[in-house]
Parts: sequence; structure tokens; C-alpha cells
Amino acid sequence: MENFTFYSPTYFVFGKNEENNAGHYVKRFGGSKVLIHYGGGSAVRSGLIGRVEESLKKEGISFAQLPGVKPNPRSGLVYEGIDLCRREGVDMILAVGGGSSIDSAKAIAAGVPYDGDFWDFYSGKPIEKALPVGTVLTIAAAGSEGSGDSVITKEEGMLKRGAGSEAIRPVFSILNPELTQTLPAYQTACGITDIMAHLFERYFTNTKEVETTDRMIEGLLLAMIHEGPVAVKEPDNYGARANIMWAGMMAHNNSCGVGRQQDWASHEIEHELSAKYDCAHGAGLAVVFPAWMKYNMKHDVMRFAQVATRVWGCKIDFADPERTALEGIEAFRNFLKGIGMPLTFAELGAKEEDIPYMAGLATDGGKRTVGGFVSLHKEDVEAIYRLCL
Amino acid sequence: MENFTFYSPTYFVFGKNEENNAGHYVKRFGGSKVLIHYGGGSAVRSGLIGRVEESLKKEGISFAQLPGVKPNPRSGLVYEGIDLCRREGVDMILAVGGGSSIDSAKAIAAGVPYDGDFWDFYSGKPIEKALPVGTVLTIAAAGSEGSGDSVITKEEGMLKRGAGSEAIRPVFSILNPELTQTLPAYQTACGITDIMAHLFERYFTNTKEVETTDRMIEGLLLAMIHEGPVAVKEPDNYGARANIMWAGMMAHNNSCGVGRQQDWASHEIEHELSAKYDCAHGAGLAVVFPAWMKYNMKHDVMRFAQVATRVWGCKIDFADPERTALEGIEAFRNFLKGIGMPLTFAELGAKEEDIPYMAGLATDGGKRTVGGFVSLHKEDVEAIYRLCL
Repeated sequence: MENFTFYSPTYFVFGKNEENNAGHYVKRFGGSKVLIHYGGGSAVRSGLIGRVEESLKKEGISFAQLPGVKPNPRSGLVYEGIDLCRREGVDMILAVGGGSSIDSAKAIAAGVPYDGDFWDFYSGKPIEKALPVGTVLTIAAAGSEGSGDSVITKEEGMLKRGAGSEAIRPVFSILNPELTQTLPAYQTACGITDIMAHLFERYFTNTKEVETTDRMIEGLLLAMIHEGPVAVKEPDNYGARANIMWAGMMAHNNSCGVGRQQDWASHEIEHELSAKYDCAHGAGLAVVFPAWMKYNMKHDVMRFAQVATRVWGCKIDFADPERTALEGIEAFRNFLKGIGMPLTFAELGAKEEDIPYMAGLATDGGKRTVGGFVSLHKEDVEAIYRLCL
Repeated sequence: MENFTFYSPTYFVFGKNEENNAGHYVKRFGGSKVLIHYGGGSAVRSGLIGRVEESLKKEGISFAQLPGVKPNPRSGLVYEGIDLCRREGVDMILAVGGGSSIDSAKAIAAGVPYDGDFWDFYSGKPIEKALPVGTVLTIAAAGSEGSGDSVITKEEGMLKRGAGSEAIRPVFSILNPELTQTLPAYQTACGITDIMAHLFERYFTNTKEVETTDRMIEGLLLAMIHEGPVAVKEPDNYGARANIMWAGMMAHNNSCGVGRQQDWASHEIEHELSAKYDCAHGAGLAVVFPAWMKYNMKHDVMRFAQVATRVWGCKIDFADPERTALEGIEAFRNFLKGIGMPLTFAELGAKEEDIPYMAGLATDGGKRTVGGFVSLHKEDVEAIYRLCL
């Protein structure tokens, strides 16, 4: 195990009706004028934005609003949000929505106190300070409610890039599983895939002696395998929604990823897909991750056999552990298919002829590699995209 | 799943040599004059206290010292610590040691800014403020490095009682697995037992639909079953020590206990044993917990069969799940025996004739019940003690 630091100071408020206490937590964490940042009209129509407004008014907190966050959130709205916050003297951002709203809120939060272009942070500059961010989560997927990460897409060239800093970890996050019950099956399945991908990105490591975090990851994967199909089939199942919501946070606050090298190639390879075709991130991951697994399996067959056995319930083939490893990957693909996820470029609307372009973007024109478990060059990324055809 | 809040703002610094950065973290979290609070001479002889002092000096932080913490830490030393801190103007307590030193430090931290008797907090009064506490952990067991809990024994009547508050959660905790490598096998095994007990106290619940936390608990138990015997057999095995140390924190910071009723009867029943005979808490738990399991198994046979199957690898007997449940309890006993833990009152030096007295203390003379999974009356507690004979 490697040395590490772990700091997860977000205050989580979990359960039914808790969005009605948003004002209480804004006040507790020092907000006096907030920007409510969210996506489309559904949050308004469902009455959620109204309830949040009510709870803010009750505490005497004034607010501005900036709706319009799209999936794969764009830099344009971030610039708009930064201007709005400065103009209105906003001192806290309250994201209402899923990972996109939260990631966009984090970018605004980092941008407000910064003199330069916020995109600097998404080009490698460390974020040192930011306005506090609170969240009311409506989609279990990205884990952004408990992480210091944010991913933004720049319209110019459709560049999708990430930034990470303790400064943008939410000060509080309100998780009401009921709010996820209106989510369509497809988006629910995308969230499930994203959560499982966050676990796999941590699972595939070259670090030795990481049994505790291995077992935690396996446990969370088993929970997702149990609860995922229930939530897809019975959208109103509170228990399934609640289990998925907590697993989504745990999968990405890094308590099960500490002390180990992580991979993250699949996320980078996927980012080019969702940037190019504006597909859902989870759907892109469903296509990319099994292909990444097949391509890299031989790097550590026993690790793949381990997850096949412990998580997918495959019997280990002692004479041929590679067969077990492959069986595990097939079980993952079948699971994804079962919850309605695409498995191929065609299902995603992605095109073979774009492969060299996307592989180039993912590897900065071949100048860098992606992935911690295996370092992938441009031609490896191309090969993985081809396995998705 | 029940509504809950979860807040774990401790900054964890994990790995080799990290105690040399104690001064850095004291400064970062606002300490200018600290009380170094620890146990016996071994921390001095090993050079650990010297290294901590050096790191404080390097940052220009002055310090006072209060050694002398014993296992089952006493109120006498807490009063002494409170006086010392007030006299010296201490603004942060730095506990160096295991759960006892940390629990004692938390009691001092709560007592310093309080006008009354600190024991009030261990008699039910909520702790509202406290000096910040930092820790350098040397024993993986209590989980006190990441929890807001503290247990103190009052000499008068040997009353062992707990207090819990966010105010006494450590602001930072330094976890260097190397520091646990000098721990004798018996104490290592006591720590392993305590960690597993923290998991079981959360596992046995009447709350439905808690698959995610169930799976996390099972994963941590599996890791302990894998790593525990290694650490007992090979004290210098860094990997095993590191996995146990992180599992010990995760087992008790409550990320796997949220949203569910918990039990904690075994801890209360054990407290009377370690208070009366001054035995190690973990050793007492090794005797009490399997007895508690046997006594309460019929309350939810399928939950016991579940843990037997998922954690102990028993085959489920579909015709007679009770048999599987019992098999799991036996597997736990065999595991404990294998790492050198006692299983009976006799091995612990406890006496049958004290049972009514201890059962009385545990239940406040029969006026209250213990346990969330099953409410146990005085006679139930007596019966459980008798199962330990």
C-alpha cells in the first residue's frame, strides 16, 4: 500500500424530504447569498426548485438563479455563472441536480475568486480557493457530491477536461433518494454504469497488498449488481434508490481508492465519445470499459480472475484463469445489456472513421499516455475504440 | 434505510514515517501549544515521542506532556490533564497511542472549556465544544482516530461509560502502520477482534434494505479475516498492518453504519468485564460477542445465515438455515481462537459469581435495556454472561 492522505469533510444529509432543509445547511456553512444552479425545467416543474427557494427564504437567505446546465456541462455557462456571481455578490453556489450541475457549480466556484480564465484550472493549474459549494443531488451517478473533481466541456473544439482540488469539494450535500425516483430507466442505468466504472477505475491497480480497499470495492460492486436492476425495473423502489445513492458517493469519495495507483483510462477514452457525440457519460462507459478490460486483461490475469470470481460469481478455472477472467468481462457486459445500456459504437451513434481523431485528442496527439494500470499510447486507444465496433 | 447525516471531517495522513509531520499538521489545524498525551514508556523508548517532539519544535510549536494513560483510561488522569491544559494555556491535544490515549485526550479536550465536571459528558450531557484533538495512532483497534466517540472508566465504582460528539472527532490523524509492528501478538489480536466487533455491531440490525452498507461491512470483515492472522504471525508484515489499520478506521467512522439501527449490546456487556477485571477490551469482546450471537440468533436467522455464507464461506443449508447460522458463529469462534483470543470467562479470569453484579451495572440495575437489534433486559445479559462460562 502507498502512503496517502484522505480528507472528506463534506457534511452529508441523507433521506426523505431533506431538500427542505437546504436553507438550514446553507446558513450553517456560511452562505448569505447563493446562486441556485441547475439544469432544465424538470426541476422547476417537479416543484424541487420551489421547495429549495422556500427553505432559503425561511432562513432569510437571498439568491440568484442560473438554470440551463446541460449533460456534459459547457464552459459557456460557467463564464456566465462567474459573471453573475460577481455582479450579485454571491458567496455560495448551491447546485441542484446531478453531476453536471455540480461540476458546473464547482467550476463557477473556482472561477469567481480567480483573476484569470477559469479554463486554466482545466488545463492543469491547481485550484487554490473557491466559493463554497452545496448540493441537492437528483441523480446517483457521478459521485461529484462527495468529490473534489469536476469535468467541463469547452465548446471550442469540444474539449472535455477535468480538474480536481480539495477547494471544490462540496461543504454539504443533500441526498434524497426520492428525487431520483423520477429518473427514466435509461438515465438510471447510465448512473449505475458510472458508479461501477468509478469502482473499476480504482480496482485495476498495480499496487500490491490492498486487500481492504479491494474488498470494499467488491462489496460496493455486489451492492450495485443487486440494486441496479431493481431500480431500473421499479423506479419508485426507495430502498434500491437509497442503496445506489450511498454507493455512488462511497464509490467516488476515494475511501476505497486510497493508497493505490488507479487507472482512469476508460474515463479519458470515454470523454472523447461524450464530447464528440454528446452521448451520456454512463452509456459511453458501458461501451468503452469492457473493451478496455479485454484489451488489458493479460496485464494481470489473476486480478481479472479475482473480480470475476468474487464479484460475478464465476468459478475459477485453475487450469486456465484467463478463461475465468474473460467470463467475468462477459458477465459485466451481460449485466450492462440487462439494464439497457449500449455495448457498441453503433448503438451509441459513434462512427468508426472518428477513431483516429478521438484517439489523438485523448492522448494529446500521441504526446501522452492514458491509464495508471497500463500506460496506453495513441495506437492502444485506437485499438480499444475498435474493440467497441 | 433510515434518514441520516454523515460527517467525517478528520484529515487522515497514512503511511511510513508520517509521524515526523505531526508538527506540520498541528500548525495547519491551528495548534500553537499542544499537550502530548500518551501511555507508558514504550513510546518514549521506541523514539516515537522524541520524533513527535522534534517535528513540533521544527514548526515552533511549544508543548506540555502528560504520559500515564492506561488501557481502559481513567477519569483521574483526565482531571489531571484538564488542569494541566488550563494552567499551560494548551490549545490542542495531541494523542500518541491507541484508543485509550485518544479517548483520554478527547475527554480532556471536552473538559477544558467546560465549567462543570467532565464526567457529566459521560453521564449523558452533550459535548458542545472541545479543544481540537490530533492523533498519532500506534494501535489499530478502537477506531477512535476517526470517530467522535470516547470511553472512560471512573475509578469510583469502576464505571466504564462512553460519550459521543462531533466536537471531539479528531481534526487530523496520522496513521503509520509501521508503528503497530512492535505490538505483541496478543494485543494485535485484541485489536483485530475490536475492529470486527465494530463491524458486527453495525451489521446486526432490524433496518431493511441496507445492502450497500451490508456489503461494505462484509468486505471489511473479509479483509480482516485475510489480514488478521498474517499480522499475528508476522508482526513486521507492513501490508497486513496497513490493511488492518485502514479497515480499523473504516469500521468505525460510520460510513458503513449509516441509515441503519445498530446494536452495541456486546460492547456494553463487555465494558463491565474490562472495567471489573481490567482485561483488554478486545479480549472481552472475543468472549462476549459469540455468546451474544448465539443468544440472539433466532431473532433473525437469515441475517446470521447471510453473514455465515458471505463472510465465513459456509454453504447455506436451505432446509435448515439455523444450522448455517450456527456454523458461522462457530467459524468466528475458531477464527478468534486461531489468533490467540480467549473464548471463556475462565481464560479471561472472570468469575461466575460476579455475573449478577455486572448484569446489574450494564442495565443500570435492571432499569434499562441494552442493544438495538434485540432489547436485552438484565436477565438476558446474565444469560449471555453464562454462555461465556
